[in-house]
Amino acid sequence: MSLSCILRRTSSFLSSPLLLAIFFIPIAQAEYVPAKTDSVSGSTHRITLRAAPLPSGQFGYQMVSHKIQTAGGQTEDVTARYSDKPTIPGPAIVMTEGDVAEITLENGIPNTDQPVSLHVHGVHFDIRSDGTMKMLNGVADEAAFPGKPYTYKWTAAPGTAGTWPYHDHTFGNPMLGAEDKGLFGTLIVNPRSGKVPALINGKIEDVNVGDIKREFILWMHETTFWGMEVNNILKGKQVPLWTNPTVGARLGEKVRFHVIGLGTAFHTFHLHGHRWLNPGTTHVVDTVNIGPISRDTFVVQAGEGVGTGDWHFHCHVIQHMQAGMMGDFKVVK
Amino acid sequence: MSLSCILRRTSSFLSSPLLLAIFFIPIAQAEYVPAKTDSVSGSTHRITLRAAPLPSGQFGYQMVSHKIQTAGGQTEDVTARYSDKPTIPGPAIVMTEGDVAEITLENGIPNTDQPVSLHVHGVHFDIRSDGTMKMLNGVADEAAFPGKPYTYKWTAAPGTAGTWPYHDHTFGNPMLGAEDKGLFGTLIVNPRSGKVPALINGKIEDVNVGDIKREFILWMHETTFWGMEVNNILKGKQVPLWTNPTVGARLGEKVRFHVIGLGTAFHTFHLHGHRWLNPGTTHVVDTVNIGPISRDTFVVQAGEGVGTGDWHFHCHVIQHMQAGMMGDFKVVK
Amino acid sequence: MSLSCILRRTSSFLSSPLLLAIFFIPIAQAEYVPAKTDSVSGSTHRITLRAAPLPSGQFGYQMVSHKIQTAGGQTEDVTARYSDKPTIPGPAIVMTEGDVAEITLENGIPNTDQPVSLHVHGVHFDIRSDGTMKMLNGVADEAAFPGKPYTYKWTAAPGTAGTWPYHDHTFGNPMLGAEDKGLFGTLIVNPRSGKVPALINGKIEDVNVGDIKREFILWMHETTFWGMEVNNILKGKQVPLWTNPTVGARLGEKVRFHVIGLGTAFHTFHLHGHRWLNPGTTHVVDTVNIGPISRDTFVVQAGEGVGTGDWHFHCHVIQHMQAGMMGDFKVVK
Repeated sequence: MSLSCILRRTSSFLSSPLLLAIFFIPIAQAEYVPAKTDSVSGSTHRITLRAAPLPSGQFGYQMVSHKIQTAGGQTEDVTARYSDKPTIPGPAIVMTEGDVAEITLENGIPNTDQPVSLHVHGVHFDIRSDGTMKMLNGVADEAAFPGKPYTYKWTAAPGTAGTWPYHDHTFGNPMLGAEDKGLFGTLIVNPRSGKVPALINGKIEDVNVGDIKREFILWMHETTFWGMEVNNILKGKQVPLWTNPTVGARLGEKVRFHVIGLGTAFHTFHLHGHRWLNPGTTHVVDTVNIGPISRDTFVVQAGEGVGTGDWHFHCHVIQHMQAGMMGDFKVVK
Repeated sequence: MSLSCILRRTSSFLSSPLLLAIFFIPIAQAEYVPAKTDSVSGSTHRITLRAAPLPSGQFGYQMVSHKIQTAGGQTEDVTARYSDKPTIPGPAIVMTEGDVAEITLENGIPNTDQPVSLHVHGVHFDIRSDGTMKMLNGVADEAAFPGKPYTYKWTAAPGTAGTWPYHDHTFGNPMLGAEDKGLFGTLIVNPRSGKVPALINGKIEDVNVGDIKREFILWMHETTFWGMEVNNILKGKQVPLWTNPTVGARLGEKVRFHVIGLGTAFHTFHLHGHRWLNPGTTHVVDTVNIGPISRDTFVVQAGEGVGTGDWHFHCHVIQHMQAGMMGDFKVVK
Repeated sequence: MSLSCILRRTSSFLSSPLLLAIFFIPIAQAEYVPAKTDSVSGSTHRITLRAAPLPSGQFGYQMVSHKIQTAGGQTEDVTARYSDKPTIPGPAIVMTEGDVAEITLENGIPNTDQPVSLHVHGVHFDIRSDGTMKMLNGVADEAAFPGKPYTYKWTAAPGTAGTWPYHDHTFGNPMLGAEDKGLFGTLIVNPRSGKVPALINGKIEDVNVGDIKREFILWMHETTFWGMEVNNILKGKQVPLWTNPTVGARLGEKVRFHVIGLGTAFHTFHLHGHRWLNPGTTHVVDTVNIGPISRDTFVVQAGEGVGTGDWHFHCHVIQHMQAGMMGDFKVVK
């Protein structure tokens, strides 16, 4: 972005001196006491991520270390869940409402003096964990430079359950970030209630998160799906699926799809033979609009009402299909 | 799509042998007994459709025969409801949760050895009724070749009420289908409860499906609306409306709009002077995002609060309006 | 639009004489008595707006006069709330369910014989207040010509609460309107209940409209945000924010965002550090799809869970970000 564009957002089309005045007017009001939503009653995740190059010249986030300390004080090292290489999308970080995460990002991109960062959606963090540069946040370059890691703190407060993207917000062009080159990944915050609504056997009911066998994360980037499976049968083992993947489940398993957009294109995600609830509604759908960073998360029972088979999924925008934006949901006995 | 694209979806960006291993791991689990959602307690629809050319060089589905056998055993021939020519969109098939349909598709396209098919959304069917080619489903070319019809079975199980598209998934280019040339139509599954929520006189209430006088089906394809009316006053008579149509109703009649996207473009559907519920929510809207195959269905009382008049409807994307993507909802006394 | 396009919408692709017959068939039915949704029990707004040029060569609506007569008979002149110049977006008109508005539009565009109009969404009006030209509505050119104002009547009947756009539907090209040159503005209809649902401290609850301190109206037009603040602390004072603005609030203030699309592009609106309810649902989001004239309205508590800071907002379509489509939500103590 040119300097003129940057200036444009801080100036006004016509002079508007009233604006700045207004939000500093010292109007008396009851003092605001923020609710204690950040109180930690869950686990603490201590994570080190590294931004690193892929053989293709793209970038990916790589899990270096993930240790979980429970409220009771035990610590478990779950690093072995993850690929030991950078992947696209990056590692899926799974939390529960009440958890906090301290995430240190290392810059492993060779031959550059450019920073990389982590901007996350949905959860709570103070302005120093926004993952933006000082020109935007006014405080600091919240990014990892070569040899200088940066640490973020995220709080999965009550009310933040959902599927959220994280991505770079800095690289190369300070406004753009390297998200478009592969620096994006997924945060799943499960509700403390342990239940999510779903359409099961034709009725809306609550499904126990603990009964979800597999999580299929599908990012829709221009004309390509980029996938990651979190296999809960294998205790959260993460399987990079790369591009336009085949995913699989046994007939009747409850699986959860997380579909997220990225980049510039708008998509319609369709999965053959299955239908699901539009989140937060009673509306049954099988095709949903996905724009850059907008998303849809839903649980289905694999093969419900349709049985085993190679159930095609694809973007229903015809030119995207023609470019190969499709995959296979293989349901087996 | 080139062969390289096809190969791309079955290979991986980097080798990922773990994937195939995972979904065949024989983990012990309680045996899955699918719920008997397919039990037939409704009517059976025996339908013959034909894909055939239009004078314009486009293709359309044509209703050849539609007989309905009720649970009580009576059979009614409703073929006269439909146009006796191929239309765009194709015939609207109306079912109720609990019904099943056996649909035989004939290929009436001259001078070709290419197949045509029916892929339907929303309802239940086994993998042999997916309407895709063997390269996708791994089982069969589920399509009608010249002289070789193909029969599909759809089950409108509980939980599948809604407006669903059906369309070709094969012709010409095996990945693309001829949907873009006109081979698309509409399946309406009414809920067994006989009721759908709507905003009536400013309040959300349940409307009896039997009180809906007219169904206006509007497909949004690139810069054109393609319409079909199902007139329930005339016992389901279907009126092809072709492009950018005028539709009409008497003041106060309950009518249902079914708006469906197709192709590559995204639209915003707006109807003047009326407002409605976003499906499955309490949100009152009058402009909705429609992407390819995404859809919006809603009931309005014609002229409610606004009276008679030529109420314009159009895509609110300016370049689509400029290209003539509009029509008229004429409300008369 | 060319004449051939206009003809196209009144003719049919193939001849379809059945259509016109159908909606005039004199079928006996119980006479429709419209519900008395238009009964006035609220205030009457008497408004004069003028369409006028901006120094940039764009057009804007300007508030000339706004007087509110309450049901009790008192009249208040609130004209001083507004800028005394034309603005983009135009003045935000705030009503409550039960109110009516009589709006006279003047054409203040020099050196033209072209009309300008007001087409509003969501509320009730008869066909003479549709703001379209006779070629569309069949009744009249519902527009202000130079020297000939036109008066519209809008009724904010029960069931019309929401954020609605108003815009020209006539200028220059009769089908297109000058909305694209700046003739657009915002109507906010508050519910008579005085309450709107919101996510507050992580829980869904009803917020009193009277507790909303500021309204931030953000129109997304191609690659630019155009903003207007309605400052309720200052009794509804309106502050034009022009392009890609900085908006501000004190920590903990309840503020309401109204995000509306316009033109040809689709967007995803994202606000850093905050999350909100998708309207009419229980779905918590922080990124929403916005198409031309589609919209999202939501209440947040400024800085909830994240504190003070410069919280970035932007379109998440990468090429739109690169073009500078962004702003700043400055939360201060």
